[in-house]
Amino acid sequence: MVRKSLDVLDHGFVSLVDTMGDDSAIVQAARVSYGDGTKTSRDDEGLIRYLMRNWHTSPIEMCEIKFHIKAPIFVARQFVRHRTAGLNEISGRYSIIKDEFYVPDPEDMAHQSSDNKQGRGALLSAGAAQGASTAIRLASEDSFTSYELLYGVDDADGFGLARELARVVLPLNTYTEWYWKIDLHNLFHFLKLRMDPHAQLEIRRYAYAIANIVQEWVPIAYRAFEDYRLNAVTFSAAEMAVLGNMLGGRDHSSVDAGLSTGEQREFMAKMDIILAAGNSGDDNAH
Amino acid sequence: MVRKSLDVLDHGFVSLVDTMGDDSAIVQAARVSYGDGTKTSRDDEGLIRYLMRNWHTSPIEMCEIKFHIKAPIFVARQFVRHRTAGLNEISGRYSIIKDEFYVPDPEDMAHQSSDNKQGRGALLSAGAAQGASTAIRLASEDSFTSYELLYGVDDADGFGLARELARVVLPLNTYTEWYWKIDLHNLFHFLKLRMDPHAQLEIRRYAYAIANIVQEWVPIAYRAFEDYRLNAVTFSAAEMAVLGNMLGGRDHSSVDAGLSTGEQREFMAKMDIILAAGNSGDDNAH
Amino acid sequence: MVRKSLDVLDHGFVSLVDTMGDDSAIVQAARVSYGDGTKTSRDDEGLIRYLMRNWHTSPIEMCEIKFHIKAPIFVARQFVRHRTAGLNEISGRYSIIKDEFYVPDPEDMAHQSSDNKQGRGALLSAGAAQGASTAIRLASEDSFTSYELLYGVDDADGFGLARELARVVLPLNTYTEWYWKIDLHNLFHFLKLRMDPHAQLEIRRYAYAIANIVQEWVPIAYRAFEDYRLNAVTFSAAEMAVLGNMLGGRDHSSVDAGLSTGEQREFMAKMDIILAAGNSGDDNAH
Amino acid sequence: MVRKSLDVLDHGFVSLVDTMGDDSAIVQAARVSYGDGTKTSRDDEGLIRYLMRNWHTSPIEMCEIKFHIKAPIFVARQFVRHRTAGLNEISGRYSIIKDEFYVPDPEDMAHQSSDNKQGRGALLSAGAAQGASTAIRLASEDSFTSYELLYGVDDADGFGLARELARVVLPLNTYTEWYWKIDLHNLFHFLKLRMDPHAQLEIRRYAYAIANIVQEWVPIAYRAFEDYRLNAVTFSAAEMAVLGNMLGGRDHSSVDAGLSTGEQREFMAKMDIILAAGNSGDDNAH
Repeated sequence: MVRKSLDVLDHGFVSLVDTMGDDSAIVQAARVSYGDGTKTSRDDEGLIRYLMRNWHTSPIEMCEIKFHIKAPIFVARQFVRHRTAGLNEISGRYSIIKDEFYVPDPEDMAHQSSDNKQGRGALLSAGAAQGASTAIRLASEDSFTSYELLYGVDDADGFGLARELARVVLPLNTYTEWYWKIDLHNLFHFLKLRMDPHAQLEIRRYAYAIANIVQEWVPIAYRAFEDYRLNAVTFSAAEMAVLGNMLGGRDHSSVDAGLSTGEQREFMAKMDIILAAGNSGDDNAH
Repeated sequence: MVRKSLDVLDHGFVSLVDTMGDDSAIVQAARVSYGDGTKTSRDDEGLIRYLMRNWHTSPIEMCEIKFHIKAPIFVARQFVRHRTAGLNEISGRYSIIKDEFYVPDPEDMAHQSSDNKQGRGALLSAGAAQGASTAIRLASEDSFTSYELLYGVDDADGFGLARELARVVLPLNTYTEWYWKIDLHNLFHFLKLRMDPHAQLEIRRYAYAIANIVQEWVPIAYRAFEDYRLNAVTFSAAEMAVLGNMLGGRDHSSVDAGLSTGEQREFMAKMDIILAAGNSGDDNAH
Repeated sequence: MVRKSLDVLDHGFVSLVDTMGDDSAIVQAARVSYGDGTKTSRDDEGLIRYLMRNWHTSPIEMCEIKFHIKAPIFVARQFVRHRTAGLNEISGRYSIIKDEFYVPDPEDMAHQSSDNKQGRGALLSAGAAQGASTAIRLASEDSFTSYELLYGVDDADGFGLARELARVVLPLNTYTEWYWKIDLHNLFHFLKLRMDPHAQLEIRRYAYAIANIVQEWVPIAYRAFEDYRLNAVTFSAAEMAVLGNMLGGRDHSSVDAGLSTGEQREFMAKMDIILAAGNSGDDNAH
Repeated sequence: MVRKSLDVLDHGFVSLVDTMGDDSAIVQAARVSYGDGTKTSRDDEGLIRYLMRNWHTSPIEMCEIKFHIKAPIFVARQFVRHRTAGLNEISGRYSIIKDEFYVPDPEDMAHQSSDNKQGRGALLSAGAAQGASTAIRLASEDSFTSYELLYGVDDADGFGLARELARVVLPLNTYTEWYWKIDLHNLFHFLKLRMDPHAQLEIRRYAYAIANIVQEWVPIAYRAFEDYRLNAVTFSAAEMAVLGNMLGGRDHSSVDAGLSTGEQREFMAKMDIILAAGNSGDDNAH
C-alpha cells in the first residue's frame, strides 16, 4: 500500500500508516453475517449502501486504519475525545518538545460569531488580522523561551527543571504528534462531527485530509457515507409537521409555533439545501 | 427512589434497580461545559433539547441507570451486542438453570416476511399457530428433561455431568437474567435501534418497557429523544433531490432513477409519515 | 500474508483473516511516543518487553487482528463478553441454521468440581461418559428436528414459522460463526483470562488456537506476554508478609491467619510453581 | 449523600457529585450472577475479596461515581486518556477562560531523573527552585495578557478575535474543569496507574484525593483493591526462577543473567518490599 501524506495548517500533517481491509472486507463480513439469507442478486455496492442506510454498522467496523498525525495541542485535545480510537502520543515527560507552533493565517482570523455561540463569524480587518497574527507568534516564542530556560542545564543556561514540569508553560498551539488507529465505522462518526461547519476550522482541515485518504481507500463505503450520513438531512417530529403541510399545500404558519427560534433558523437552512438539491437533481437529468 | 418492575413476555421482566442523575444532571454538566458562555435566557428544557438536536452527547452520558432483566437467551444475545453497557448475568457454570422457557403467543406467530429478509410477515392460521406453539413447548420440555438427566446425580437419576456441560442442550428460549447498567446516551441509542419495527418483536417489547421507565425518570430528555431521534426522519442526498423537486413544483420522475427499489419503497413510507404529520399538525392547530 | 486455519472441537475452527502491524508496529508507535527521549541503545525486543512489563499498553493496541471463528453458541456467548472486540455473527433471523452441534468427547466428560464452584472435576466413568455423550447427541438431533418442523413450508412438512422464532428451540451447542476483530493489547487480556485453568475447557481450546496464531504473528510480543503476564504470579499484601518471613528465615505461621482458606490453597499452589521454576532455572544453568 | 470536596494543588479540587451503588451493590450483582451456586456461608466481604482476587470484574462495574474536577490542562490531558470514563469539560470556544494557572511549590521542583526517563529526580537548590517558580509565574501571566489582548473588544483594548483562536496562546498549566463519570472497576484501574510512583506527581495528588473519597464510599472494595492490586507484587517467569532458587536454598546467581539491568533493579526493589512486609507482619503478630 502506498503511504500518503497530506500537509495541514502551517506545520502539521495527516499521514497514512496502515490499513486493514477495504470495501471488500465489509462485504465479506456482511455475507457471513447474513449467511444463506443473502444469496440474492444484490451486488457488493448495493450491499454496502444497504448496510450504511440501515445502520448495520458491525461489518463497517471490520476495516481499520492507522494515521500518523501532527497537529497543535488544542486540535489534539478535540481528537482525543473520540474514545473509540487508539492513540499513542509523544510525551513531554520523556522528550524535549520542538519549538513549532501554529499561527493562523490572517485570512482565518475572525470575530466571535454573534449567533453561533461557539464559532467564529465576520473576518477581522486586514490590519487587525495582521496584528493578532503577530501577537500570537510573539506570545508563542516567549513561551518557548521560558520553556528552554526552565529545562536548560542549570547554572549555565537554565534551571535544570524536569521536562514534565518545564513543559507546563508551553502554549496550546504547540505542535504535538501521535499515531491514531480507528475502525471505519467510528471514523465515519468522527468525520460526520468534525467536517460539520460547527466544528472548529482547524480540526475541520484535518477531517478533510482524513476524508481525502479514506475516499481513496474505501471508495464505495465513502460514497455511501456521503449520501446517507454526511449530506443527509434529518427532520424532527415538529419539522415533519411543517413539511407535511407544505407538501400538502396547506397553510403551515399555524404549526410554526412549535419550533424554537433556533429551530426555525435551522429549518430554513435545511429548506435551502433541499431546494438547491432539487435544482441540481434537475440539472443532472438533462 | 421507587423500584418499578414491568412484566415482559410470558415469564420475563424489566425491573429498575438504581439511577444516577436525572434531567437536572444533564443541565448541570452542560452548564459546566459551556461555562460563562451559557449565561443566557435559555431554560433547562431548551438546553436539553438543544443538546439532543445538535448531538452534544457528553452531558447526556452523565446519567446512568441499572436494570434487572429476565429474558430468553436469544433476546439476551441481542442485548449483549450493545457493548457500552455493563452486564452481570447468571452463570450456567455455577447454577442449575430453572426450567422456564419462552413460548410465543399464537397471535405472535408469523411467516417469514417476503420483503423484509430478517423479520416476520403474515400471521399463521389459527390452527398452525396453535400447532407451532405446542411444538415449541414440547421441544423445550424435552430439552430440559435431557438437561436434568445430564446433571442429575449419577447412578440414581442422571449422569452427574458438570453443569457447564449439561447446559449445552438447553434451548435458546430458556430464560436467563442479568443486571444491566448503561448511560442515558447509549440507552437512547439502544432504544432507537430496538424500538424500530425491524427489530425482533420480542426485544422490542423489552425496549418498550425500558422506554416506559426512562420516560418517567428523565421526562424532558425522553421527549427530546422522541422528537429529534425516535420520530425524526432522515433524507439521503438523493432523496433530497426528489423532495426538492416536489417542493419546487417541478417534475421529479427524472431523478427517481437514482434510488434503488428498496430506497423508493422507503422514500414512499417516509412521505406517508410526513403527510400524516402535516395533517395531525394541522389538527392540533384547531 | 498466509491464511492459517486451525480445527477446534468437533466442527469448529479458528481461521486467520487479516492482520495490521506486527512487532515492528509496536516499536514504531512507541518510538513516536517517547520521541527523542528513546534515542538510547535499547533494542526493539528490549523495548517491547519494557512496554509489556510496565503496562505501557497503547503501543500494543496499534496491532489489530481479525479471525473467522466457528464455535458452539455457549462458547460464542463467552467470546462476546469481551466488549473491546468487533464482531459480526451469522444471523438466525436471515439464515437457516445448519444442523451442526457440539458433542463433547467422552474423555472430556467430568463431574461438577467439588472445590471449584464453576468448573469440572473428576472424570465420569467410561460408561457414564458414553451415555452422556449419546444423550447430548439425541437431544440435539431432536431439537433440530423441531426447528425444521417449525420453519418448514406449511401444510407440507412444517408450520412455516419465521426463522427468528423457529430458532428459539435450537440448543446452546449449535455451531455459529462470526468475524472477530480485536487489537493486540485486548487480545492478550482475552488470552490471559481464557487460557486460565478456571476458564471452561471448550473456550480454552479456542484460546490456545488463537495463541498459536498470535505467537507466529508477533513472536517477540507474545514471548513478553508469556513472561510478564501469562506465566507471572502476583502476591497480595498479606501473601507478601508470609513470603517475607519465609525469605527472612522467620517463623511465618503466625501471620497465616490473615489468609482465607481459599487464599491459603492459592498461596500453596503459587509456592509449588515458584519452587518448580527455581528447579528448572537451575537445570537451564547446567 | 454528603458532597465532599478536597483541594488539590494551588487552585484545583476533586469534588464528589454523585454515586450509584456501594459495596452492597457489588454483592447484589454478584449473587445474581452466581445464582443458586452461591448459597454458601461466604459473607459479603469475603465475596467482594474473592471477586477482586480472581478478576471477576463485572460486579465491580455495577458501581458508578461522578466527580467535578478542576486541574491544570496538562493533568486533564492525562485524565482523558482513560477512555472508559465519561467527560464533560468547559469549552474555550464558548467561554472566556479565567486566568488561573498552576505554579509548582518550590519543594516540588526537581531535576530530570537520571534513571527514570520520564520522571523527576533530585530536588533543585532552593535558589533555583525559587527562580524556576518565578519564571513559570511570569510566563503564565504574559500568556494570559496575550490571550486578553487577542479576544478583547477590538479598537479599544484588543483584536476582537474569536475565543476559539485567542485561547491557543494559553499555557498548559491553565486550570480547566470537568465532570468525570466512571465505574468502580475502571476507576480502580485508573488509581492503580495514577497512584504509581512513576505517574507524574501532580496527577498522583488527584489520584490520592479520589482514592480518599472512594475509600469512604466503598470501604470493603477499596481495602480489597489495596490488598490484591495496589500493594500486590507480580513476579515474571524469570523472576520466579530466581525466587524459587532463593527459597530452595540454592545458588541463584546463575539464572540472574536472564534479567535485564532494569529488571534486576526492579527485582531488588520488590525484594525490599517483601522483606519489609515480612517484618511488619511479624510485628503485627506480637
